[in-house]
Amino acid sequence: MTDTMLLQNLRPFGAAATDLLIENGQIARIAPDQRAGEGVPVEDCQGAILLPGLVEAHTHLDKSLWGMGWREHQAGPSLRDKIDTERRLRREWDIDPHRQSTRQALLSLGHGSTAIRSHVDVDTETGLAGIAGVQRTRDELHDQIDIEIVAFPQSGLMSRPGTLDLLDAAMQAGADVVGGLDPCGIDADPKGQLDAIFALAETYGKPIDIHLHEAGELGAFSMEMILERTRAHGMQGQVTVSHAFCLGMPDRDRARALVADLAEARIHIATVATVSRPVPMVQDLRDAGVILCAGSDGIRDTWGPYGNGDMLARAMLLGLRNNLRADPDVEHALWCCSWGGATVMGLKDYGIEEGCKADLVLIEAETVTHAVVSHPPRKLVLKGGRVVARDGAALKAAP
Amino acid sequence: MTDTMLLQNLRPFGAAATDLLIENGQIARIAPDQRAGEGVPVEDCQGAILLPGLVEAHTHLDKSLWGMGWREHQAGPSLRDKIDTERRLRREWDIDPHRQSTRQALLSLGHGSTAIRSHVDVDTETGLAGIAGVQRTRDELHDQIDIEIVAFPQSGLMSRPGTLDLLDAAMQAGADVVGGLDPCGIDADPKGQLDAIFALAETYGKPIDIHLHEAGELGAFSMEMILERTRAHGMQGQVTVSHAFCLGMPDRDRARALVADLAEARIHIATVATVSRPVPMVQDLRDAGVILCAGSDGIRDTWGPYGNGDMLARAMLLGLRNNLRADPDVEHALWCCSWGGATVMGLKDYGIEEGCKADLVLIEAETVTHAVVSHPPRKLVLKGGRVVARDGAALKAAP
Repeated sequence: MTDTMLLQNLRPFGAAATDLLIENGQIARIAPDQRAGEGVPVEDCQGAILLPGLVEAHTHLDKSLWGMGWREHQAGPSLRDKIDTERRLRREWDIDPHRQSTRQALLSLGHGSTAIRSHVDVDTETGLAGIAGVQRTRDELHDQIDIEIVAFPQSGLMSRPGTLDLLDAAMQAGADVVGGLDPCGIDADPKGQLDAIFALAETYGKPIDIHLHEAGELGAFSMEMILERTRAHGMQGQVTVSHAFCLGMPDRDRARALVADLAEARIHIATVATVSRPVPMVQDLRDAGVILCAGSDGIRDTWGPYGNGDMLARAMLLGLRNNLRADPDVEHALWCCSWGGATVMGLKDYGIEEGCKADLVLIEAETVTHAVVSHPPRKLVLKGGRVVARDGAALKAAP
Repeated sequence: MTDTMLLQNLRPFGAAATDLLIENGQIARIAPDQRAGEGVPVEDCQGAILLPGLVEAHTHLDKSLWGMGWREHQAGPSLRDKIDTERRLRREWDIDPHRQSTRQALLSLGHGSTAIRSHVDVDTETGLAGIAGVQRTRDELHDQIDIEIVAFPQSGLMSRPGTLDLLDAAMQAGADVVGGLDPCGIDADPKGQLDAIFALAETYGKPIDIHLHEAGELGAFSMEMILERTRAHGMQGQVTVSHAFCLGMPDRDRARALVADLAEARIHIATVATVSRPVPMVQDLRDAGVILCAGSDGIRDTWGPYGNGDMLARAMLLGLRNNLRADPDVEHALWCCSWGGATVMGLKDYGIEEGCKADLVLIEAETVTHAVVSHPPRKLVLKGGRVVARDGAALKAAP
């Protein structure tokens, strides 16, 4: 019974020390001074803070260069150039989706993420190879980390004939979410792209996650088309818009009206806490009741050299980006990196209560805010009640 | 001769491995395959990257709460409220400037900073206690780290009668730089404040460093008054404007014209890579030839919970803030956190050449950009040729 154990002397969310009994992979009892039954392993957590497993809600597992040696950045400044450079380097550098997604997933696991939503490229060049590679990783790591796969038309959907059939095939092959991308900026056919992906989502009964880099009025226009289709298809609560830079537009009244509409249609927002351009503000979304989740975006890939998959560090960046200083506000940034992602991914029995799944992370810090700003190596990470990482590194070796 | 040693197998800026001989605290020779003279200590650097000691060019050593246990953030959102809350908590919490500056300086040293420019509060309540406390730290750590003290009228200069006399007394007592702060926003007397600090600087023959949070046209107005006085007093190259948020104003033509004027008057800019509001852009300043240095600002103080004094992490934030992706651009962010600060502080014999002072930091990374984005614990830090920190921590214990 490796998924049964007693964790002693931990502090849920920084509260008073207590013990936590795990049985059959679930939290069975949270109470002080518990004694372990015979044969039940005991872990002394030495007063560490207990949080639920963190959630990496927006990344690209198939394209990281992690572990491949340093590669100088080659892409030009435009979005289109990054996309084209990536397609070229994927061939030239042998960026194997299975190997690289395994490396990044284990990296994330070492930092305490127990669930990942990953966009995975589908295009006329790579076909379904990325989907297959990440699916294999998902299967091999199924008892370590939850991986949700978004079939993502990175190179364009309507503007690259054949991609829609591949996206359909990816959903047929078991992808979890239908992806989209800048229906105006990349495809120049917002009606075509959005009608297509909402139709696919309906066919397969799956949610949608759309990258929307489009800024200002253009992004707002696309957002309105997404809102319209979310309502028409009855997909409230099933649509996520990633980045949503347009919500940071200068016209704050217009942005707030959009946020109110998002709340009403229960559309979620995923942010990567971009700091170089306007972004949706945490406070606006929270006040309106829009769920905000967060992710690392690409980690050390052909798009840029940054990132390490640490969602506590991402919570810090989210706090800095939104000028969050008071402890409850910084705690909310962490909420986005845990409950926010869990909500968007629809994770069942998530949290730290009796009956919840024992996906847990232990951190040596004084308070939750202290954990966010200092993000020390994670002391212990559990998935389904089993220890999967310790002292900042996954127990399973990366390829 | 503890300031003589041979460092073997290091890579200056990530170049080919070589050896570096230190004699009398200076870099005596950089060449491969050197053999140590009798009694000369040898350190195998195992291929680590060698950089000059990093420079923390904008911080507040007197006010960190580091090591005082977690304190919940209490201040409201306005600048004035942060200033007033800090004055109150300085009394209530016994934020001792000597103890706290020692803690922060050693923290920075552990991260490879060998020079710090610190603003230190001077006001009618604390008087010169902050200056005296940080001066004591500077003296006690003089062989570990260079500390430059800015006499900083945090609570206002003209608006708080008596402060100007105290600022004069601080300079008399040996402060290195005359400080200023939002001549409009805080003092509502730009002519009064700026005339006063330029006169003080002239009297004591010292440089100036002015906090300018004022945004948009207001900040541009103050900047123009600073430009005018810099020229009139012949203080080209001796004036730094910290933050300079106005350079991030929406009117980019206006901002660029200001930047051109700053270049002409050789006024330097200090940034803390603020990500929650418009800031001067690295690229604009570089193109115009304006020196940009960087700092941590306050580290875990009553202003906010963030920061740890790691200038490699600050270079990463600067890179993220300015959307720097290509390796040479990320290297420039590091330049700001090293040469930029050294230039602003007027550090003599700074760099990695024969004859330079042996203020050095060694980092296990593949390339300089890799060092910035991963900022691992510093392997070794030397000050004047002596090892002062190892594996991320200063050798000297903090109080």
